[in-house]
Amino acid sequence: MKVAVDGMGGDNSPRIVVEGSIQALKEFEDLQIIITGKQEEINKELSKYEYDKSKIIVVDATEVIDTNEHPVMAIRRKKDSSLVKALNLVKNNEADAIISAGSTGAFMAGSLFIVGRINGIDRPALAPIMPGKNGKFMVVDCGANVDCKPNNLVQFAHMGKIYFENVLGINNPSIGLVNIGEEEEKGNELTKATYKLLKNESINFIGNIEPRDVPLGNTDIVVCDGFVGNTILKMYEGVSSSIFDVLKSEIMSSTRTKIGGLLLKPVFKRFKTKFDYKEYGGAAFIGVKGICIKAHGSSDGKAFKNAIKQAIIFYDNKIIEKISDEIESLQ
Amino acid sequence: MKVAVDGMGGDNSPRIVVEGSIQALKEFEDLQIIITGKQEEINKELSKYEYDKSKIIVVDATEVIDTNEHPVMAIRRKKDSSLVKALNLVKNNEADAIISAGSTGAFMAGSLFIVGRINGIDRPALAPIMPGKNGKFMVVDCGANVDCKPNNLVQFAHMGKIYFENVLGINNPSIGLVNIGEEEEKGNELTKATYKLLKNESINFIGNIEPRDVPLGNTDIVVCDGFVGNTILKMYEGVSSSIFDVLKSEIMSSTRTKIGGLLLKPVFKRFKTKFDYKEYGGAAFIGVKGICIKAHGSSDGKAFKNAIKQAIIFYDNKIIEKISDEIESLQ
Repeated sequence: MKVAVDGMGGDNSPRIVVEGSIQALKEFEDLQIIITGKQEEINKELSKYEYDKSKIIVVDATEVIDTNEHPVMAIRRKKDSSLVKALNLVKNNEADAIISAGSTGAFMAGSLFIVGRINGIDRPALAPIMPGKNGKFMVVDCGANVDCKPNNLVQFAHMGKIYFENVLGINNPSIGLVNIGEEEEKGNELTKATYKLLKNESINFIGNIEPRDVPLGNTDIVVCDGFVGNTILKMYEGVSSSIFDVLKSEIMSSTRTKIGGLLLKPVFKRFKTKFDYKEYGGAAFIGVKGICIKAHGSSDGKAFKNAIKQAIIFYDNKIIEKISDEIESLQ
Repeated sequence: MKVAVDGMGGDNSPRIVVEGSIQALKEFEDLQIIITGKQEEINKELSKYEYDKSKIIVVDATEVIDTNEHPVMAIRRKKDSSLVKALNLVKNNEADAIISAGSTGAFMAGSLFIVGRINGIDRPALAPIMPGKNGKFMVVDCGANVDCKPNNLVQFAHMGKIYFENVLGINNPSIGLVNIGEEEEKGNELTKATYKLLKNESINFIGNIEPRDVPLGNTDIVVCDGFVGNTILKMYEGVSSSIFDVLKSEIMSSTRTKIGGLLLKPVFKRFKTKFDYKEYGGAAFIGVKGICIKAHGSSDGKAFKNAIKQAIIFYDNKIIEKISDEIESLQ
């Protein structure tokens, strides 16, 4: 399998991209990696490692797309960017997947315009896996589609199901509709109409799920429009980091509490492992005709390696073909 | 001032309602309280306290509205419920305010239909004050209006401003629009159109605020539709309680960590105080022609007393008149 990686995306590129790629090569046989980006910088990073030179190709790209740029404009104008070049490799079948830790907006816009949608899918969706109290869960959509129609959410549910079954090996995953009340008649126009559709689909639809219960992780897949999904994702980050910031500064406030903090080190460490997004790789952009994985902007080498791993599982399980078949069978 | 309290609303009524009312009577002079609900039960609770009998009146109501009932139906059918009776006291100017810890939906529906909107306000909004890392903040709307138009959000901003200035004494509070990106052009149709309106209003509009930054509490008032606001509120609760549940069970997992937990007791206690919603009373339902305060369903006596205090500040500062004047000046 050939994987294209955007060498310049993310907070610490190309360093962590190269680090993650090298780790992936060691872990997975039959893997070839094409790194796009500033050749000189990438080669400098590569020179730090011992590896089979035939397994990494560097494709020069002089431009870099910044996270602050207008996604669509950036994709259109920066033809020689590391991201656009990597996407074109997928489009032209020179690579089987792309991974980028760069601008989420540009990544989604590029995947959509360059790689293209699967026939029958109206709106591809960004679908990260998140750690919950009792297990992991997936949020579809997390920001690709801020204004949705009920049928979009139905497609999100089906795509999420195929992804969950094949990548995570969980059969017939439970699917909930994010809503501000449990009863069918609760919610806004979108959720009320979506509920009526979802309950007639051949999926394990468990009804509405309130945002309060999302972090429990009892429901495998939660479906919502991208505005709400992004709100969930960012509130999750924001509340956790606020809590830990306050706890940290409180712990440092006296000797007694400092000692308490030391004793609780293993607790905080286990906590961190349990809620470590890095274990889950990146967020799949599902519904496009290629394997497009968005790694977290602040990924380290391990997180980036896991995003590559995710692409390999995606590829081995022929998820795109399966989504395509499922959507066809619905029509 | 006369305050009507719904004696049967909330998880522990009428016990905590009576407890909070008695506390309020001790703290505030010139206060009279009318408790609606099952006379016998309420009198039994009252008999536990020593208080000036002339200051509490019990108005019998035989019905109770449950949190699972359809809000509008319940309000229409249960004319003899503690909630409807308390709302009618406000409508008929027999009370200056109402506080209820019961069904949020029924409370909002009842406030809207029985008490009525302020002239010029299209949509009253539920506006709780929440504890943030660096200070408190208000979310308008938190669930009253799940489908909004841009102009509704503009009114939320103005109402929030008046509330914040008068109840919390913070002049010219900062106002942010909840959005999934910082730039003006980000977001869905609603937020893009709302941004254009808000930037031309005579308020301290600081632009978009991402959900990740909401829990910091750096922005005094965050404005959004009720679906998003409710998602924020419930994610806040859900993420915090998930984190503390996991921490708690991890702390109990070994002797070392149990000792650490003991040493950190003051930390967790200060944390709890800092993030204690009970300090902030209830959520005001702003935009109706009466003072309508929704106390948390799981309020204790202190929280209920603080909700009464909030109604007193609301009354003393003539907030309804001020909202009315502000809305008139905008037209």
